[in-house]
Amino acid sequence: MSFDVTILGSGAAIPTSRRNPTAQYVVCNDRHILIDCGEGTQMQIRRFGVRFQRISHILISHLHGDHFFGLVGLLSTMHLMGRDKGITIYGPPELEQIVRLQLEVGGAKPEFELSFIVTSTKEPQVLFSDKMIEISSFPLKHRIPTTGFLIREQRKERNLDSEALKGSGLGIAHFPKLKNGEDVILESGEVRKAIDYTFDPKPSHSYAFCSDTAYLPSLADVVKEVSVLYHEATFTEKDRDRAKATYHSTASQAAMIAKNGHVGRLLLGHLSARYSGVENHLKEAQEIFSEVEVVEDGMNIQIS
Amino acid sequence: MSFDVTILGSGAAIPTSRRNPTAQYVVCNDRHILIDCGEGTQMQIRRFGVRFQRISHILISHLHGDHFFGLVGLLSTMHLMGRDKGITIYGPPELEQIVRLQLEVGGAKPEFELSFIVTSTKEPQVLFSDKMIEISSFPLKHRIPTTGFLIREQRKERNLDSEALKGSGLGIAHFPKLKNGEDVILESGEVRKAIDYTFDPKPSHSYAFCSDTAYLPSLADVVKEVSVLYHEATFTEKDRDRAKATYHSTASQAAMIAKNGHVGRLLLGHLSARYSGVENHLKEAQEIFSEVEVVEDGMNIQIS
Repeated sequence: MSFDVTILGSGAAIPTSRRNPTAQYVVCNDRHILIDCGEGTQMQIRRFGVRFQRISHILISHLHGDHFFGLVGLLSTMHLMGRDKGITIYGPPELEQIVRLQLEVGGAKPEFELSFIVTSTKEPQVLFSDKMIEISSFPLKHRIPTTGFLIREQRKERNLDSEALKGSGLGIAHFPKLKNGEDVILESGEVRKAIDYTFDPKPSHSYAFCSDTAYLPSLADVVKEVSVLYHEATFTEKDRDRAKATYHSTASQAAMIAKNGHVGRLLLGHLSARYSGVENHLKEAQEIFSEVEVVEDGMNIQIS
Repeated sequence: MSFDVTILGSGAAIPTSRRNPTAQYVVCNDRHILIDCGEGTQMQIRRFGVRFQRISHILISHLHGDHFFGLVGLLSTMHLMGRDKGITIYGPPELEQIVRLQLEVGGAKPEFELSFIVTSTKEPQVLFSDKMIEISSFPLKHRIPTTGFLIREQRKERNLDSEALKGSGLGIAHFPKLKNGEDVILESGEVRKAIDYTFDPKPSHSYAFCSDTAYLPSLADVVKEVSVLYHEATFTEKDRDRAKATYHSTASQAAMIAKNGHVGRLLLGHLSARYSGVENHLKEAQEIFSEVEVVEDGMNIQIS
């Protein structure tokens, strides 16, 4: 089972030759998820060798063009290439009309089922859950309604301790309970504590995506102890006023969220086209939180 | 005065690493025109160094995604980069709602005036005319309503013959009439024929754009004697049935239009992603019409 993120676009509102608008491809325990879909995402998908027909969940954070103008083109190409597997899109309420309208005028009604689920901008919300992963959204603070996303591996099973099990009276019928951490009462009435016959499971990993947002200190609780946090850093502290005015964050502010949330690692992205290098972003973030890097288009990050 | 076309995208429905979806940038006598605007056009504009804020007319042939999914992104970037000069978009009736809806949900109402003019799919229509150029549209034959476009230099003035004018009794007050080809009656009642005091003007050039369309023999009349004809050639004759079924043309069919229309040169584009090379397109077209080339992204073609 793998858990990794491929950065398809790391730029901000105005695309540059080096940074496409926002899009990320996440594979978590064989679930394939696209987060945001700026213009040109389908070209980036091809460029970086992503097998895009595997995507079954698309999460759209908000309706600024650099986060969704590539969606209808991607869906059209999925249709033209013969997709029949359904896809679910999670995002703001207006998104469904925008997508369906454009597909309909072109006569490109997809053969596959297209479902839309509206995200709440008032409170955290579980969007999808199965035995392998859970996807949820949470409100951010931007000029228009915007959410972040959290992708978690489901809690893993405890590992059986085969040595301890020998001669314990416990058999295969009891294993599901034990793996789930539940104690077992034998027919004799004796209690066998799960903790005595199992080891702790491997840790469950998680990835949080926060773009775009003004500095929002309460985010630290929402993303608490995630393995990897992606947080926008459109500006550096030199442009702190501009960040505030446009409801964006600086690299320092992103690092504060990472530090206070005790996350494993921090990724910075959504850099404004005004910065030619990443040194200043990196330097000011590192002063607050050392495990940080600035993402680039095409970068692949292992979460687990 | 210049008249040239830059190919921003030469591909068909599914973009490839080599061919972006359709878009062309035309400069005609200092008028700057974008024809079609597939996804990623704003990136191609940057890549090929087009000064995109000069564009004041955008012509959209039809509402298949590979011809317009880049429009709202381009307009957003024009807005973000401080444009204040108005722009007029010519295309199918649904286009205005699609564009305005997406700009509005993102709160990116442009500062510049955005006007829409609906193209007729029933008959040829003059869309714009000033002293330098004329833009018109004409119906094509495709799965959904589609038009081609014709851009012409206005008829040029006749050139004065300074030798002949000497001692003719004609002065500066008569020159506008003569340049316009009108004869002049002197105060004495004598007639001075324009043709005796002027040379023929330089020829006026023209560019016709036909994408997408099934083979439509009557097009030869519409594009009669244009300097340069761009005609789609999605397929080769080997796939003639597929061309017919999808309302597209083969390279041979495009060449027939060029031959019967007695055009100056023929450009082929909108090649399906199934063809890796252009040799077969070129070969079968050349058998019918010799002055032909297949366009590539980034190519610049002089019309005059």
